[in-house]
Amino acid sequence: MNKLIVINEKDNVGVAAEDIPAGAEATAGKCRIRTAECIPQAHKAALRDIPKGGEILRYGVVIAYADKDLKAGSLVNENNTRLPACPSLENLPYGTDIRRPDELPKPHRTSWMGFPNAQGPAGTRNLLGIVTTVQCAAGVVNAAADRIRRELLPRYPHVDGVVAVNHPYGCGVAIDAKEAELPIRAVRNLIRHPNFGGEKMVIGLGCEKMTYPYVMDEKDITPENVITLQDCGGQQAMMEAILRMAERKLERLEQRRREMLPLSSLLIGMQCGGSDAFSGITANPAAGYASDMLVRGGATVMFSEVTEVRDAVHLISARCPDAFTRDRLREEMEWFDAYLAAGGVDRESNTAPGNKQGGLSNIVEKTMGAIAKAGTAPIAEVTGPAERPTKHGLIFSATPASDIVCGPSQLASGMTLQVFMTGRGTPYGLAAAPVLKVCSRSALQKHWRDLIDFNAGPVAEGGMTLEEAGRALFDLILDTAEGKYIPYSDRFGFYNDLCLFNTGPIT
Amino acid sequence: MNKLIVINEKDNVGVAAEDIPAGAEATAGKCRIRTAECIPQAHKAALRDIPKGGEILRYGVVIAYADKDLKAGSLVNENNTRLPACPSLENLPYGTDIRRPDELPKPHRTSWMGFPNAQGPAGTRNLLGIVTTVQCAAGVVNAAADRIRRELLPRYPHVDGVVAVNHPYGCGVAIDAKEAELPIRAVRNLIRHPNFGGEKMVIGLGCEKMTYPYVMDEKDITPENVITLQDCGGQQAMMEAILRMAERKLERLEQRRREMLPLSSLLIGMQCGGSDAFSGITANPAAGYASDMLVRGGATVMFSEVTEVRDAVHLISARCPDAFTRDRLREEMEWFDAYLAAGGVDRESNTAPGNKQGGLSNIVEKTMGAIAKAGTAPIAEVTGPAERPTKHGLIFSATPASDIVCGPSQLASGMTLQVFMTGRGTPYGLAAAPVLKVCSRSALQKHWRDLIDFNAGPVAEGGMTLEEAGRALFDLILDTAEGKYIPYSDRFGFYNDLCLFNTGPIT
Repeated sequence: MNKLIVINEKDNVGVAAEDIPAGAEATAGKCRIRTAECIPQAHKAALRDIPKGGEILRYGVVIAYADKDLKAGSLVNENNTRLPACPSLENLPYGTDIRRPDELPKPHRTSWMGFPNAQGPAGTRNLLGIVTTVQCAAGVVNAAADRIRRELLPRYPHVDGVVAVNHPYGCGVAIDAKEAELPIRAVRNLIRHPNFGGEKMVIGLGCEKMTYPYVMDEKDITPENVITLQDCGGQQAMMEAILRMAERKLERLEQRRREMLPLSSLLIGMQCGGSDAFSGITANPAAGYASDMLVRGGATVMFSEVTEVRDAVHLISARCPDAFTRDRLREEMEWFDAYLAAGGVDRESNTAPGNKQGGLSNIVEKTMGAIAKAGTAPIAEVTGPAERPTKHGLIFSATPASDIVCGPSQLASGMTLQVFMTGRGTPYGLAAAPVLKVCSRSALQKHWRDLIDFNAGPVAEGGMTLEEAGRALFDLILDTAEGKYIPYSDRFGFYNDLCLFNTGPIT
Repeated sequence: MNKLIVINEKDNVGVAAEDIPAGAEATAGKCRIRTAECIPQAHKAALRDIPKGGEILRYGVVIAYADKDLKAGSLVNENNTRLPACPSLENLPYGTDIRRPDELPKPHRTSWMGFPNAQGPAGTRNLLGIVTTVQCAAGVVNAAADRIRRELLPRYPHVDGVVAVNHPYGCGVAIDAKEAELPIRAVRNLIRHPNFGGEKMVIGLGCEKMTYPYVMDEKDITPENVITLQDCGGQQAMMEAILRMAERKLERLEQRRREMLPLSSLLIGMQCGGSDAFSGITANPAAGYASDMLVRGGATVMFSEVTEVRDAVHLISARCPDAFTRDRLREEMEWFDAYLAAGGVDRESNTAPGNKQGGLSNIVEKTMGAIAKAGTAPIAEVTGPAERPTKHGLIFSATPASDIVCGPSQLASGMTLQVFMTGRGTPYGLAAAPVLKVCSRSALQKHWRDLIDFNAGPVAEGGMTLEEAGRALFDLILDTAEGKYIPYSDRFGFYNDLCLFNTGPIT
């Protein structure tokens, strides 16, 4: 029998588990309908007649309004519905949906083997990070990193790799612009990423705007940690200086060992990209379940993507324990609303063609699926993009939803492992922290067997409960953090550029 | 005798050719002064007493006003002067400074050996360009390009290299924003870069916003030219598909041969970065002389960097032959003024600490040196960033001055060789087109012997006239275009990321 998946008993649409032909019978729980037309996998069918102007309910909330009379069994999508208004940021609730710790699922592992750091989160990897203060230095640093990998790294078996942290910022930008704070903070925090073990290695050019004091403490700006290319006598001297410094850093990194650590030393990030209508049924709720386990165990879990939270802001604010946290949430949302408005767009410009092909009719539906990855724990803190959290627990880090901008931003916040949910599939990866790819549909896992690390599809097919998927994913997260599991993106070296979020002017 | 360099007889400051100690005698043409304090190399000394509020004249124009009484022989810099107001964009002149072709220096070579293309400029290199429509695909394309270089390229001796054209655009952006036009145009034009010989190879993910029709003509969107990663069954299938397509493209590229071509088939770009006070005395005017020779010979020469033209807009507009070209110049300047103002800054946020250390007191002085690279030819056309010029001659392409943003933008405009003037030094390079590095001071060439391709320093030292430097640079440009000279950045593979100019919102 054809199956339509329903998340909440109020819902008047169901999501096709597989393609359903026209005129076929399909069930959604106790409800039984006949399709009026073909309902492709992940797309929605009306479970009853919905009049023009009527609410389209999924996840128990209004995701859209019918643009015309919709008969039971007909396809419901962006072509016959319209987008609800964006929730107001005034009078947002707080403290009305606070889960107690003992209401969260209990983790069956409470420690992990990680690389401890003197301060902040522990490392999941032991990496030499070489950070540039300006894009001008990128070519030299890439070439040097290649040589370090070939010539030096084999002698340091306890070091996992060498990462050239290049980015587009540093010069040719209005460093005096108010919003320069964001990319500067990102570079500052990337230098002290937990996977780099406190070993700072920073390469500047010498005439750039973002001088060392912008991104380093005065005490760290020493020949031990900093090379200025304009001070080196040519290409060969640059290479020699970089290799010499790398060797000293590698010697110290080589001493690092994994130790048994509490979960409170773990800082992971959640992100979704290339979502489909299954993302909110399988992959994201499974990640949310694992997130709740981690949070209960004392870990820090970050979720982000402002435009994929905006339409559920009232639901997230209700999980803020106090007015201060709620107000920080509102501030970040207001900032982003204004940012989009200045560009003449709004949150609906988030949705991509692939989302719609994957059955997501609009940003509200996408959002309701996206926030499932944040589980049910209270919001411990709201931070700006690339800020380091100061608390443990569930953190909302207000970055753009763009995968390739959210990733570097979470990295800068100290994230040492990212769980990445996808419905359409992406080879996305980060060199500085492992990325676990979780797919929403078994078909994708079958199609991309050597790219998907975890398949949450069986949750929709009845092969696994959400709890089982969540617990299995929790285990895989810890195994990956411990270096026992190597994600596919690391096996193939599929790494994305570090696209920093810079909203200030380019000069 | 200590020398102070003076460009124009009206000037009341001179630039120290070398460090001059306090109390030393120094000459500036017929003028002879005693320094009141140390004048470091490239910094300015007052040639006569200048009262508070008085004009500081260099290049025969007001570059600043004295902030206090300045005695002859004293150091004049940003600490004792203030910035003049920005020239108005109203009533800009046009047609009042038009050099006739026969007034430009005559090229002694009127042809070159290049790779002809069916349309547009000829190639200076024969490259396989693999362009992504979205950053998500970058990891796969980088890994595939490495394999193509190792496994396939050795069998195609007439192909110079493989370039992975990755960029931060394509998804997670407001593709419906008005300003999305800029990055979309850039990717569209990068696909058809003259050095890629008309062989289109485009890799998409499949769910991104920037679908193929944004950047390709319908007739080109075929399995011959396009691979969608989500259509490939996993990592291995992706690699095989890319390598297979690369092989077909390499077979065709292998047939390309250099032919004797007129200069009109050459499109080169001029840029300066890390400028100092010598840039406007040596490197930029030498480049300007070479530019004039190229323009007289029928070539197309592009200069850019709006914030380094803005303060000389009246001088450039006077070189526009008609009101239309003048109005296009004004439009681009107005757009950029508004763009900077929206970020709360203005053109003065262009100058970097290195510029000031190099003796450039403000953006006006920097601009007067920067426009010297545009020589004296009339402005044939003004284009927006990443637009392809439709005319031959001298083109003003209105890109930001940021080296790493101007470079990719000129590339997209079809530039096949960039001449890059520097006073402070940068290892900057582009994978898709050779970059010739020209330094402004002999000291830099001595310091960076294996990074600087051409030293214009002797112009200041009396070892070379400007004409000699310009003619030698003209020769080096053609030798490089012909593949006879390989710039240092290509020898070492020092390549910068392609940072596209995107002013639209990230979602």
